[in-house]
Amino acid sequence: MAVSLKLSITVVTIVTAALGLVTAALGLVTAASALVSHRHSRPLSARSKHTDRFDYKTRYFQQKVDHFGFAEDSTFKQRYLIADRYWNQDGGPILFYTGNEGDITWFCNNTGFMWDVSKELGAMLVFAEHRYYGESMPFGKKSFSNLKHLNYFTSEQALADFAVLIRSLKQTITGAQNSPVIAIGGSYGGMLAAWFRMKYPHIVIGALAASAPIWQFEDLSPCGTFYTIVTNDFLKSGKGCAESIRNSWDAINKLSSTAEGLTFLSHTFQLCSPLQAPDVASFKSWLIETWVNLAMADYPYEANFLQPLPAWPIKVVCTFLKDPSLPAKSLLQNIFQAVNIYYNYTGNAECLNISQTATSNLDDEGWYYQTCTEMVMPSCSDGVHDMFELVPWDLQDFSDNCKKDWGVRPRPDWIATVYGGKNISSHSNIVFSNGDLDPWASGGVTKSISDTLVAISISEGAHHLDLRSSNDADPSSVQNARALEVEYIKKWIEEAKAEPVQ
Amino acid sequence: MAVSLKLSITVVTIVTAALGLVTAALGLVTAASALVSHRHSRPLSARSKHTDRFDYKTRYFQQKVDHFGFAEDSTFKQRYLIADRYWNQDGGPILFYTGNEGDITWFCNNTGFMWDVSKELGAMLVFAEHRYYGESMPFGKKSFSNLKHLNYFTSEQALADFAVLIRSLKQTITGAQNSPVIAIGGSYGGMLAAWFRMKYPHIVIGALAASAPIWQFEDLSPCGTFYTIVTNDFLKSGKGCAESIRNSWDAINKLSSTAEGLTFLSHTFQLCSPLQAPDVASFKSWLIETWVNLAMADYPYEANFLQPLPAWPIKVVCTFLKDPSLPAKSLLQNIFQAVNIYYNYTGNAECLNISQTATSNLDDEGWYYQTCTEMVMPSCSDGVHDMFELVPWDLQDFSDNCKKDWGVRPRPDWIATVYGGKNISSHSNIVFSNGDLDPWASGGVTKSISDTLVAISISEGAHHLDLRSSNDADPSSVQNARALEVEYIKKWIEEAKAEPVQ
Repeated sequence: MAVSLKLSITVVTIVTAALGLVTAALGLVTAASALVSHRHSRPLSARSKHTDRFDYKTRYFQQKVDHFGFAEDSTFKQRYLIADRYWNQDGGPILFYTGNEGDITWFCNNTGFMWDVSKELGAMLVFAEHRYYGESMPFGKKSFSNLKHLNYFTSEQALADFAVLIRSLKQTITGAQNSPVIAIGGSYGGMLAAWFRMKYPHIVIGALAASAPIWQFEDLSPCGTFYTIVTNDFLKSGKGCAESIRNSWDAINKLSSTAEGLTFLSHTFQLCSPLQAPDVASFKSWLIETWVNLAMADYPYEANFLQPLPAWPIKVVCTFLKDPSLPAKSLLQNIFQAVNIYYNYTGNAECLNISQTATSNLDDEGWYYQTCTEMVMPSCSDGVHDMFELVPWDLQDFSDNCKKDWGVRPRPDWIATVYGGKNISSHSNIVFSNGDLDPWASGGVTKSISDTLVAISISEGAHHLDLRSSNDADPSSVQNARALEVEYIKKWIEEAKAEPVQ
Repeated sequence: MAVSLKLSITVVTIVTAALGLVTAALGLVTAASALVSHRHSRPLSARSKHTDRFDYKTRYFQQKVDHFGFAEDSTFKQRYLIADRYWNQDGGPILFYTGNEGDITWFCNNTGFMWDVSKELGAMLVFAEHRYYGESMPFGKKSFSNLKHLNYFTSEQALADFAVLIRSLKQTITGAQNSPVIAIGGSYGGMLAAWFRMKYPHIVIGALAASAPIWQFEDLSPCGTFYTIVTNDFLKSGKGCAESIRNSWDAINKLSSTAEGLTFLSHTFQLCSPLQAPDVASFKSWLIETWVNLAMADYPYEANFLQPLPAWPIKVVCTFLKDPSLPAKSLLQNIFQAVNIYYNYTGNAECLNISQTATSNLDDEGWYYQTCTEMVMPSCSDGVHDMFELVPWDLQDFSDNCKKDWGVRPRPDWIATVYGGKNISSHSNIVFSNGDLDPWASGGVTKSISDTLVAISISEGAHHLDLRSSNDADPSSVQNARALEVEYIKKWIEEAKAEPVQ
């Protein structure tokens, strides 16, 4: 049986950090290095059911392909979803989800927080799709066909889309003219929400930026923190757990150096395609991605975020990883049991496919392009402060891969130049929430900067738990966070209403 | 003798409002309408002498042609001037002139204020040229050859140039790393200074926006105020003066309807080329531009701003325009005497050329492109509140001309969308100065918005008088304005130094 790994472009180019998105888990690609590399996470499914509770209308808005130039004057249809069941039509607020790297219906259905608070706030909900994702394709099916078509695929263009859309909504919806608008987003969407408030404070009165790693750029944060947080999640979820994973790499290296060992790994991990020597890096990346995704999705209740998972999945995983001192084969048999929780909680998987999450869906491809242009987020691991192997951040290698795959080189200093890096104290009305369990807190704003740039920590929170629907199993930390978030939103609305019109 | 009017593209397309630039007087083109139209002002010379006092070094910085896309990866040389004689090399401030529509050396030599205060502030001066002006051509001599080359000619790209340049200066100049930077500009340069602070508050701690009509867009200001202010300047400078000009249009219309009348006009105005019927609109535009330019340059001392002019030139002009009730020919003979002050104060002109200021120099052409894309500034006159003829604002006609001349249609709502229109109260540390005599105060911020968004009125000030070198004839209003401006700049610097670093 031939090896049939269908590695997507993102896997081939090798990655180190994974940004699980807002509530979606389209991976964030970052560092590239040498042989061993970390893969990024991907969504199992970008669509969830459209329940009665999430009752929205789908709309399309004609956007200019290029807001920042006049040579390209074409337009495209940007999709957005709108829900106004509880909206106070006399100037009630608009909660505006700044869509990120995926199908907007998926974000809509996974941002229960907005639905939960809409009644109390008398708010209209709008979920705006990010250009080049979902159905919002500037050049239809040819949007990714060449660099010329990809040229309008930037965060600045996306923010301009949001601004133009909101201006239009306020002009065309009766009663919305004076509606204060609050930006809400998670992960990259949270970054967009924060940046939107920074760049368009005349359009949005405030922003809730959940799990938004706006400082995961250049040297704003240490590149290794991401994997340290992942490691800590495993460290505190069971004795021997992180150490078992740390020891697994040597075991894999040792076994994968022989044909017999490769066969053992293939059988033990019930791989759909037998592992061959050149695939070992991908195999390890796949495992890394699994641990990262577990950290991002370490929620207190059974949930289907990146995969269907039990409550506190890392604890469950760690029940298999108690003895790090086992010999290689036994250790890896336990690693399989752990991984199997992630990939086969439903019990339906017949074999594990190390390219399983490496689908070539557009979302992934799009995000990879973004990391190769603006979203250059250094990450690294050292095997000392984390449970991974030594993988330094290698910008040159990363850039070379981008050049090869897309014909572009990233501009690693651009995001801090345009959005301010650490120097954002002159802005106002942004709540940055981060979960202590979330690897992406590594690049987040975790300390308040001023009275109006507020950090909220959620001690038991993984990746933007606060944006998910409320749940009986929610720890008090996330309940408190949400209450505080609503309080700030109300305060911004009050202040906006009191503001004299020029 | 054949008619040899060499009207530049801007004149052919006919204009209504004139934005005299910062200290430069490259015209601001705006409305287009019907037959009669207003022309915009243009600089007599874009270069003045490089005196010892203005001792700068010329430098070039490699800028990306496109900050907002990755398909075009070429670079160009942006010119900037730097003066550090008085700079405190241990973190002394940088006063950064946000160059506007012309040769940066011209702005440098005409912004004496910055030179005057550099010693007191221990400041480095930097004057950055705006892309597509002067020597800063993204595609060299081909920058204006087609729409593809013009595509990167926007205010957003210019601001990004400034941001990238400042970041580089702070990284490369020893002692500048912690230097607070203050943006300073006049006219369109003042708009850029204000917008720069709004969009890049992490790069500049504050902005002095002199005579910056940031509200001369959409319906943010009445379209007629510009010409009302021009008219008021003449009204208060001599009895019968404005009324004479108001009556001149009918006289011109009457005389220009006959061959004899055209000959009379040609002789009376000592025109270099005899006036023919199709040129009458241009002739009137030229006069309108003359009155506008006099209003912008109505300085209290002899100066060479748009032309060499006497102190309080409108008062001088008005000495010829005391009797509005004269018959047509006598009235127009007086109008000529008035106009001759503007065009022939030195006595060197042998004849007057109604295309004289309509040179086809790059500056003008560039600004016309900007008005045809982002800088759509409605203007109109009604003949009732002003001394001009009825010229309504006609966006469609203006847009059609842009389409014809450049292949683009303007986006009149973009500037307010991207820069906030009237809703800018969340920003901080901007001083907006306006002169009561300056037509461009029509679109300026003339009332303070908050403690940190401050309007300064200069009762005896024409177009950004405050940015000019101090002069013994300066009225106290401009002396006070400059003192206040320095006070704010010092305050911003103090606050920036006290700001904790993240």
